[in-house]
Amino acid sequence: MFVDYLKKTNSKLEKIQSVLVAIGGNEDKEKDLDVLKQTVLLTDKKDPYIELITTASSMPEESGASYIAAFEKIGIKNVKIMDIRIREQTKNSEYLERLKNADVIFFTGGDQLRITSILGGTPVLETIKSRYYNEKCVIAGTSAGASAMSETMIYEGEICEALCKGKVQLTSGIGLVENVVIDSHFIKRGRFSRLMDIVTANPGSIGLGLGEDTGVVIRQGHLLESIGSGLTVIFDGQHIKYTNISDIQIGEAIAVENVCVHTLVKGHGYNLLTRRYITPSEKGGLAY
Amino acid sequence: MFVDYLKKTNSKLEKIQSVLVAIGGNEDKEKDLDVLKQTVLLTDKKDPYIELITTASSMPEESGASYIAAFEKIGIKNVKIMDIRIREQTKNSEYLERLKNADVIFFTGGDQLRITSILGGTPVLETIKSRYYNEKCVIAGTSAGASAMSETMIYEGEICEALCKGKVQLTSGIGLVENVVIDSHFIKRGRFSRLMDIVTANPGSIGLGLGEDTGVVIRQGHLLESIGSGLTVIFDGQHIKYTNISDIQIGEAIAVENVCVHTLVKGHGYNLLTRRYITPSEKGGLAY
Repeated sequence: MFVDYLKKTNSKLEKIQSVLVAIGGNEDKEKDLDVLKQTVLLTDKKDPYIELITTASSMPEESGASYIAAFEKIGIKNVKIMDIRIREQTKNSEYLERLKNADVIFFTGGDQLRITSILGGTPVLETIKSRYYNEKCVIAGTSAGASAMSETMIYEGEICEALCKGKVQLTSGIGLVENVVIDSHFIKRGRFSRLMDIVTANPGSIGLGLGEDTGVVIRQGHLLESIGSGLTVIFDGQHIKYTNISDIQIGEAIAVENVCVHTLVKGHGYNLLTRRYITPSEKGGLAY
Repeated sequence: MFVDYLKKTNSKLEKIQSVLVAIGGNEDKEKDLDVLKQTVLLTDKKDPYIELITTASSMPEESGASYIAAFEKIGIKNVKIMDIRIREQTKNSEYLERLKNADVIFFTGGDQLRITSILGGTPVLETIKSRYYNEKCVIAGTSAGASAMSETMIYEGEICEALCKGKVQLTSGIGLVENVVIDSHFIKRGRFSRLMDIVTANPGSIGLGLGEDTGVVIRQGHLLESIGSGLTVIFDGQHIKYTNISDIQIGEAIAVENVCVHTLVKGHGYNLLTRRYITPSEKGGLAY
């Protein structure tokens, strides 16, 4: 069965040695710190070096300090803050060198538009992408840091207005994972409509909703495994039979028939390429 | 095709002449009053008589007055308030007589547990049910008044906690519509998880989520038509392939594979018996 999966995996994805961790925000930093622990364990290193990119935050010092304190609780002391606030800083050769050596590159939360508008097309982001595709490292992001990972990124659209045509605002993300749109704080902020809208407009994309204190580990760019205490929600529009979306005006409500929804909890998985749900017992067979 | 539908309809439902209107709450009472107009139009009467049951509300006078004012705006003056606050009042013969003559019996919002705990098993409710099954009238309810209509009723369970086993509280509703659980204020309050939970625990029930200023007209107890400005969301668990729900403890998160979700806007329909989505063009063929 594992062979069947790989047959369907394109060769670009097969070669990816790095692992992504997309976290829905508000991960526990006080009690068991499970999501952060799992993230660090993925490095397979005893004393991993973590680089925090605080660009999304309007309060980068506070944000960085809270992660330094949290990682220290789980015994990780080798943590640095890369406080990039403007595009000029992205050419800094010291920063590029640090990114080449980090075991975990961790994007903190805030506003995902700050990540894309400040880092998009810069040496910093090119260095991160190059490491992701060609080396073995862990690239993690929480909240805005998770939302920014996909090729197409949600940056605005609150629930009272969503599932009205044109009310969810999208732009290009940093593009570490394809054919998926990631939304964070998914259960707490009731963002169901946003991903219904996304998969209706283009069933080619999977909608991935991450709850708080919850994340997905993404291996080879397509094999998801849920971690943390909450829910990961998958929206699959492949079997949509009917929608009015191309017949209605901007602002009108979207009707759609047959969106498939799955929820994953810790230990459950999903294959973005085959669109298959993976139960904990099957997961063993998949060797991840 | 209409014949096919009816073949699958059981004879009890076929005989229902009355129409239900379940409204998701906060229907427009100022501008176009579309949901209230549609409700009144279903009576086919020029000067319909409306009986407002304000039992759900902790402020019944204010609630009743706001509907009297709203109905007056659309030219309906024959509106009375049935201000039942305790079970003793449900034997009042004047009330029973008024319920026998009303063209629209309208349950206002508030707390659905007040509706079931005060009206459950009383002559008032028996009179309403008898009229529903044996005569032609319109029974409408908004918010709590809509949630109470189903046989199984949600009365508690906020979003941050839902989709954890045992966190959505259910009890028996007034039972005017079967095999469905109705939730109101659905989009605004982000109640997606509540209906995912319901249909996972028992795929025999359809989950029906009503947005604000939005309703469904239910004919023959199973043919739904969406009205108003917002979204009606249908959750169908019939094709669930996997869930952990019977293996986990109370409070643990529910994993589920393959819940089908549909959204309806004004003019779209759904058949609760055949679990079929009905597009506006098909609806003509169904003669409703």
